[in-house]
Amino acid sequence: MTPAPFRTALLSLLASPLLLSAPLLHAEDEVAQLPEDMLETARQLKQTALESDLAWDLTEGLLTEVGPRFAGTDGDRAAVSWALTRMRELGFQNIQAEEVEVPRWVRGDINVEITAPYPQDLVAVALGGSIGTPDEGIEAPVRQVYDVEELRSLSRSQVEGHIVFFSQRMERTRDASGYVGAVGNRTTGPAVASEMGAVAAVIRSIGSSDERVAHTGGTRFPDDVKRIPAAALSNPDADLLERQVATGRPVTMKLRLTSRMLEPTKSANVIGEIPGSDPDAGVVLLGAHLDSWDITPGAHDAAACVGIVTSVAHMISQMDEQPKRTLRVVLFANEEFGLSGARTYAENRRNRLDEHYVGIGADLGAFAVWRFDTVINEDAMPVARALHQLIEPLGVEMGTNEGYGIPDFIPLREAGMPVLDPLQDAAPYFDIHHTINDTLAKVDPEQLRQNVAVYAALTWMAANMDVALRPTPEDD
Amino acid sequence: MTPAPFRTALLSLLASPLLLSAPLLHAEDEVAQLPEDMLETARQLKQTALESDLAWDLTEGLLTEVGPRFAGTDGDRAAVSWALTRMRELGFQNIQAEEVEVPRWVRGDINVEITAPYPQDLVAVALGGSIGTPDEGIEAPVRQVYDVEELRSLSRSQVEGHIVFFSQRMERTRDASGYVGAVGNRTTGPAVASEMGAVAAVIRSIGSSDERVAHTGGTRFPDDVKRIPAAALSNPDADLLERQVATGRPVTMKLRLTSRMLEPTKSANVIGEIPGSDPDAGVVLLGAHLDSWDITPGAHDAAACVGIVTSVAHMISQMDEQPKRTLRVVLFANEEFGLSGARTYAENRRNRLDEHYVGIGADLGAFAVWRFDTVINEDAMPVARALHQLIEPLGVEMGTNEGYGIPDFIPLREAGMPVLDPLQDAAPYFDIHHTINDTLAKVDPEQLRQNVAVYAALTWMAANMDVALRPTPEDD
Repeated sequence: MTPAPFRTALLSLLASPLLLSAPLLHAEDEVAQLPEDMLETARQLKQTALESDLAWDLTEGLLTEVGPRFAGTDGDRAAVSWALTRMRELGFQNIQAEEVEVPRWVRGDINVEITAPYPQDLVAVALGGSIGTPDEGIEAPVRQVYDVEELRSLSRSQVEGHIVFFSQRMERTRDASGYVGAVGNRTTGPAVASEMGAVAAVIRSIGSSDERVAHTGGTRFPDDVKRIPAAALSNPDADLLERQVATGRPVTMKLRLTSRMLEPTKSANVIGEIPGSDPDAGVVLLGAHLDSWDITPGAHDAAACVGIVTSVAHMISQMDEQPKRTLRVVLFANEEFGLSGARTYAENRRNRLDEHYVGIGADLGAFAVWRFDTVINEDAMPVARALHQLIEPLGVEMGTNEGYGIPDFIPLREAGMPVLDPLQDAAPYFDIHHTINDTLAKVDPEQLRQNVAVYAALTWMAANMDVALRPTPEDD
Repeated sequence: MTPAPFRTALLSLLASPLLLSAPLLHAEDEVAQLPEDMLETARQLKQTALESDLAWDLTEGLLTEVGPRFAGTDGDRAAVSWALTRMRELGFQNIQAEEVEVPRWVRGDINVEITAPYPQDLVAVALGGSIGTPDEGIEAPVRQVYDVEELRSLSRSQVEGHIVFFSQRMERTRDASGYVGAVGNRTTGPAVASEMGAVAAVIRSIGSSDERVAHTGGTRFPDDVKRIPAAALSNPDADLLERQVATGRPVTMKLRLTSRMLEPTKSANVIGEIPGSDPDAGVVLLGAHLDSWDITPGAHDAAACVGIVTSVAHMISQMDEQPKRTLRVVLFANEEFGLSGARTYAENRRNRLDEHYVGIGADLGAFAVWRFDTVINEDAMPVARALHQLIEPLGVEMGTNEGYGIPDFIPLREAGMPVLDPLQDAAPYFDIHHTINDTLAKVDPEQLRQNVAVYAALTWMAANMDVALRPTPEDD
């Protein structure tokens, strides 16, 4: 795509850590001057991305030919096979399926009903990791609380023998703060309820839509806490339960779940590379996860993300000019139910984790990117601002250096890997997240292309620029 | 509400059929002059309606205390009891539960999956009246057609032994034309497929949303046609099936349904009146249906409609001034599965059907009314325009005299009953129609109040004005 020979011009100012740490350069508006030819290539890549259908084709292919692909299932195995085939077709190198042990949880069937005062069936899904009920189900009075904090304020006698219902509704926000502010009800609520003697727990779905579709997701029980059945109600069903509670009449519910845990099994991280010209320059890690929850095709979470990072690497491989750094696409196994793919990846490379120059991940779907965060050396923020200028015309705001990346980067971030973190619009994402509703119909081709353009430009710069990004220990 | 004594001023112009039939009065823009004091009371009723919560309270109550209420089920019986109680509490008179025989269809369970080339489970619902499959299900190759017309163009050998898939997507329109243009696939498609040797039929849901929620509804088999199992896929699932068909590889599906028909049972039309001052002036029929499909709380279809007509009659009963005509609220049984409530109502009054001065029904939900149609004597169109002027400030356009009313009015319309026909916004209605998604969360209190205001104003005028509305035989 860029016919002219191209050599990264050393950006002397930013290449000097000493100079970067000079106080004068910390001004809020300091913008680094990156090499113009490198920027120009990145701009051309953006344009190519905006005209490319590859990310769509990959997303559509994964959804049509595989669909749901929960860790350890037939769908998971089909997804690994699909990814390996696609990487081979697209000319990736050093392709491998890296073995990962994954837990094997089976959802089974679920029936949740209000049995009094006004009997009605509710739309619900088991939370990942839930145990089943006895065959006859569990019927008990309902104790409604807003959240874990309110639950903890109750006495044990108010909770014992009850089904605890967490009624908090997540706020719909453009960043993920609404989700973060409510998800504790799901991850720890059932365990806290169990510690206080509850016989089961139901939560209002951690999701923001009014569709009658419940959101699953994992729940965790410490080893010393008795597991109890746990499920999520759709928002309209949680509304109904709240309205019945509000009548003041005693409310009872009945749950019947056949969820159960099987023995762990095997899956794989699927890895492929576009080799760089300088084997010593480190690796740009492009990460997304290949698995999905069992109930959903996972279009945004994260088939489209697989499409984004895979297509970006392929687009760069098709250029006349080779990137300096190797691009490594990692499609992680089992993000959804314990991050064992991410942990295996980091563990297998524990002696060379610093080969990761930077990580760029996608796991917040493929609605338009609206903000650009980072996790880098504070002294490199002028470079972050320069990168932002490149993607600002795509509608992206400058964020902060308090980025997050993706869950699969957690072990690598803890080991010091820098992160460039494009943030997608989280508002529509959490309407469909972890539901049957996360389908191709929710993926907008235009917004998907905008994502590819953002990631392509950032990836090209990350693959070629001479800047120390790694956070220093003082930054932590 | 209207303290001043009030007597309907005879509108001599319009009260004279002879004069009304004069050609000069047929001009497109002719607007009748209705009595100003009557209009003023109607305007005050509108204002009261815009501040009333009664329709909301009724809607919310039916959904909280009853929920789904399919003909012949426990929910149906609870709904009849609920409606009788509410009518008594609201001071209705001549309250009765009019016995109606209803068919008793049981949905059972359903599993629909693509078994080749890429196995995936699909979200589907049985169509009302479908038979079940053998226990082991039915697996067969898929024959995709756009609609019934394309199906009929095929040879029997192309259809025989196949599962026919109707792929037509209904258009999302503000009137109901998109629905009408596609619903034939549901009502007659499976029977036509059976006649051509198909072993089962699946349709793309007759619904306009991209939520992964399937729309049910009745399908009909003539007595001499063999019944075959029939189901509807959600739009995203129909998309997926189309994508697999588009790969060119043979597609097979497997259906398993346990649907079955039981013996007919009993339900009831719930009827209550607000008596008018003139027993000989006829009745204004306010109609909605009390039943719902089995899978849905039926918030828009038609709990909110029950709320609208019941609250309008109650509001008028609270005025100082008595309406001239009796308001009769009829909450019909079993609209959804054969209209037996409507037929029973008409049959029981077969010798006095002309007591119905006019019918005003609600069965298109409670999104904002945007158009006003009629089914009246063409000569009375200047009156329709005058009524329209009354509700135009609420955002209502003037429609045509080609109105429809509600399905429950069909037997009465056939007997000549005039209809005033406010048309709600059908676009969002058919996103949720006949789905689990038709919940209170989809009802907007402001739009519900706008409905009540439109119906209240029209009902007051209908109860008092001296105009011959009944279509003449020549109009038919």
